[in-house]
Amino acid sequence: SSPCAACKLLRRKCTRECVFAPYFSSSEPQKFAQVHKIFGASNVSKMLQELPVERRRDAVASIVYEANARIRDPVYGCLGAIFTLQQQIAQLRKQLSAAQSEMVLLKFQHQ
Amino acid sequence: SSPCAACKLLRRKCTRECVFAPYFSSSEPQKFAQVHKIFGASNVSKMLQELPVERRRDAVASIVYEANARIRDPVYGCLGAIFTLQQQIAQLRKQLSAAQSEMVLLKFQHQ
Repeated sequence: SSPCAACKLLRRKCTRECVFAPYFSSSEPQKFAQVHKIFGASNVSKMLQELPVERRRDAVASIVYEANARIRDPVYGCLGAIFTLQQQIAQLRKQLSAAQSEMVLLKFQHQ
Repeated sequence: SSPCAACKLLRRKCTRECVFAPYFSSSEPQKFAQVHKIFGASNVSKMLQELPVERRRDAVASIVYEANARIRDPVYGCLGAIFTLQQQIAQLRKQLSAAQSEMVLLKFQHQ
């Protein structure tokens, strides 16, 4: 069978025990290349090996997300998304508090 | 002068050009150790060198945040925070929409 995207990039033999193979198919070379650029293959390999097999798919998804975020935004990475969400929360809290004040007023006026 | 936390951990001479020295003081060895564990010194060095000097402090802060998040939560890392914020947003939207419906009703009842 053909090597996974990681073994292909790292030019090594893809064995049955390859920790990357289940998550990085050779049909998506960019996915591993980005993870490798940001975290490094050996760090990611260690991170995955420290996790039980059934948690690795989620870990890979979050690592891929973080790597993409860092490539898109080299200064803030994932934190860009966190800041945006925090601003949305502040905005929604403001709207909610305004709505609640208006409601108190409406109830008071029509008592 | 004493080497920065990065050069100390990597056991190398800390020169005047060291890209880590301004952000990783030897008084906070854990800060660099965590970044190194998750991203690897050479990746972080490349990331910083690709940025103008005035953006590097923010980049270091976000890299430190991400590394800490990944160590605390090896499966979701930063995404844990993103999921929590998204849930808060969904919750706030629901409350806001309920408040707006109630307001419409109040206005209608007392017309």
